[in-house]
Amino acid sequence: MTMPDENSRPLTIGITMGDPAGIGPEVIVKALADESLRQRARFIIYGLHEPFAYAADMAELQSFWSRAPHEEALQAPDSVVVADFDELTLEGRPIRQPMAEQGRASVRFLEQAVADARQGRIQAIVTGPIHKTAWKLAGIDYPGHTQFLGHRFHARRVTMMFTGGPLRVALASDHEPLFELRNSFTIGRVFQPIDLLHHALQDWFNIALPKIAVAGLNPHAGENGQFGDEEIRVIQPAIDMARHAEIRAEGPFPADTVFCRAAQGEFDGVVAMYHDQALIPVKLLAFDRAVNVTLGLPIIRTSPDHGTAYDIAGKNLAEPGSMKAAIKLAVELAGKQRKLPSPSGTLEELRD
Amino acid sequence: MTMPDENSRPLTIGITMGDPAGIGPEVIVKALADESLRQRARFIIYGLHEPFAYAADMAELQSFWSRAPHEEALQAPDSVVVADFDELTLEGRPIRQPMAEQGRASVRFLEQAVADARQGRIQAIVTGPIHKTAWKLAGIDYPGHTQFLGHRFHARRVTMMFTGGPLRVALASDHEPLFELRNSFTIGRVFQPIDLLHHALQDWFNIALPKIAVAGLNPHAGENGQFGDEEIRVIQPAIDMARHAEIRAEGPFPADTVFCRAAQGEFDGVVAMYHDQALIPVKLLAFDRAVNVTLGLPIIRTSPDHGTAYDIAGKNLAEPGSMKAAIKLAVELAGKQRKLPSPSGTLEELRD
Repeated sequence: MTMPDENSRPLTIGITMGDPAGIGPEVIVKALADESLRQRARFIIYGLHEPFAYAADMAELQSFWSRAPHEEALQAPDSVVVADFDELTLEGRPIRQPMAEQGRASVRFLEQAVADARQGRIQAIVTGPIHKTAWKLAGIDYPGHTQFLGHRFHARRVTMMFTGGPLRVALASDHEPLFELRNSFTIGRVFQPIDLLHHALQDWFNIALPKIAVAGLNPHAGENGQFGDEEIRVIQPAIDMARHAEIRAEGPFPADTVFCRAAQGEFDGVVAMYHDQALIPVKLLAFDRAVNVTLGLPIIRTSPDHGTAYDIAGKNLAEPGSMKAAIKLAVELAGKQRKLPSPSGTLEELRD
Repeated sequence: MTMPDENSRPLTIGITMGDPAGIGPEVIVKALADESLRQRARFIIYGLHEPFAYAADMAELQSFWSRAPHEEALQAPDSVVVADFDELTLEGRPIRQPMAEQGRASVRFLEQAVADARQGRIQAIVTGPIHKTAWKLAGIDYPGHTQFLGHRFHARRVTMMFTGGPLRVALASDHEPLFELRNSFTIGRVFQPIDLLHHALQDWFNIALPKIAVAGLNPHAGENGQFGDEEIRVIQPAIDMARHAEIRAEGPFPADTVFCRAAQGEFDGVVAMYHDQALIPVKLLAFDRAVNVTLGLPIIRTSPDHGTAYDIAGKNLAEPGSMKAAIKLAVELAGKQRKLPSPSGTLEELRD
């Protein structure tokens, strides 16, 4: 008989509601309505009780959760607890567009989840969709969750990875104007997602020596410099750097065939140069099941791949597939992360 | 009883071999080995007999073609005739890499097919893959077939369209460095493929009022200017122009979901802003069946979506799926083009 250790405690997964006027409340309640999912971990929902309960009513779901102020929520024995931020409750009917009030609320949920994660009280964060304009109106100047979390966790480097169907794709850039990327397209920017993806595939997906394909930037990956030289000046040197670090990276490959090859199993992961290069294939192959995972943080963070979708919010139309996939993946990865032989020291340091 | 008219003559389709050291000869002979395809038109192959016969031997195909010098080939009654350019025969074993000699040969085949098309002796051109470096070595300064043909046919504007599975995608730009597109990304460049696609869908695909989706350039189609302003400055005005011309154009839509929507039947066609934006989804949904169609020419021109693939050429490894799809589509479109009530006058003028 072994002593109970840290690994025997149930995992606690924090889920932030995101913008309370978006589809966050609906997709969370619908995803967690799956009892088999609820048996795999405890879930703390950082948000407002009202839109959550309203979404459940609309979907004709019976209550499967309790509600408590934040401190009590963390101690509650229930499998799903809504940590209710009453003081942020929206007055009247929710306005289904970007508003400062909703931006402030969504950041408050996130800040609390981050604080709890830093103290080891939750083992993963699943984030509901926020609206960047609402954040801006609330004075929050981050392009999205990824950069916000990178900053709050003092992460030296973070990147987005998307999983969907057979694909796992890490990004060298994300929410920035395509043509402006030219000014910041450096070897380091391409090397980092290769390196982060390599370690994620090893640690979380149990692949001893992952085979990583790196996409080109230009048509036909530049065709030997005829249609652009970034492959020669930037991407190839980044691949060489990775290979020097004993990462099995290959490329640069033409983007229009590399995802077909990866989908057929030729590669364990792909590094894409920009947002749409990654998201077009991921969403085509796994619409409604794609998940965004942040690489480079000391904790697990996943999210669905969709936005607030104000136009369909509050109408019981939102599909929970991607949120459900995000929650499932968070549970799996948090379980693996806890068992890693040498966890990153970063989280420990942050507790000081 | 009606008089025999132009429409009762069998269609004659010209197929250029492309680079004789690439996979062109193999995919053409394998595609035409399908007897049901051969019954739908006459085919003139502009190329060299030797690599064609060699490819057939390797694939263990019995001869189904005749061979003749060019002038005789056009008169021959056979369903498949190789118009042999003996004077260009490669000496010794073919060198499977870009060479001036092969570049010259592939242009010569094309020039002859263009001349025959201008005289109405063939109703469509299907082009086998050429290598741009071989063209360059031969002193031919075009990025590809599309621009070459646009020039030879004095077309005011041409664009690439790809068909594959449920998708039909026209391109606002093609073989140019991604970041350099910034300097030439104009309203006209986006309007033209919308307009050309609209007419192609009407004339060739029998859609009375085609619904066309226009993709954004930036992540999330710029999200109201937060991640780039090309959607506001360039793409939206082009869509407005199209709508003013009574084209049912919509967008700009985020590129990562617009192809899913089109694949589900929400749109008849999509206009993509750059090469990989179009080719990633087309190849994922129709690998080995995607076809490139040139819009804006007075004749039908199709081609497979792959290159010379020197690395597998001469080994009987090349799959003919895309070439076969290109030939089939050329036959279909040429049949429709001939029946159009008011054919473009351009070809007539060119005969002068």
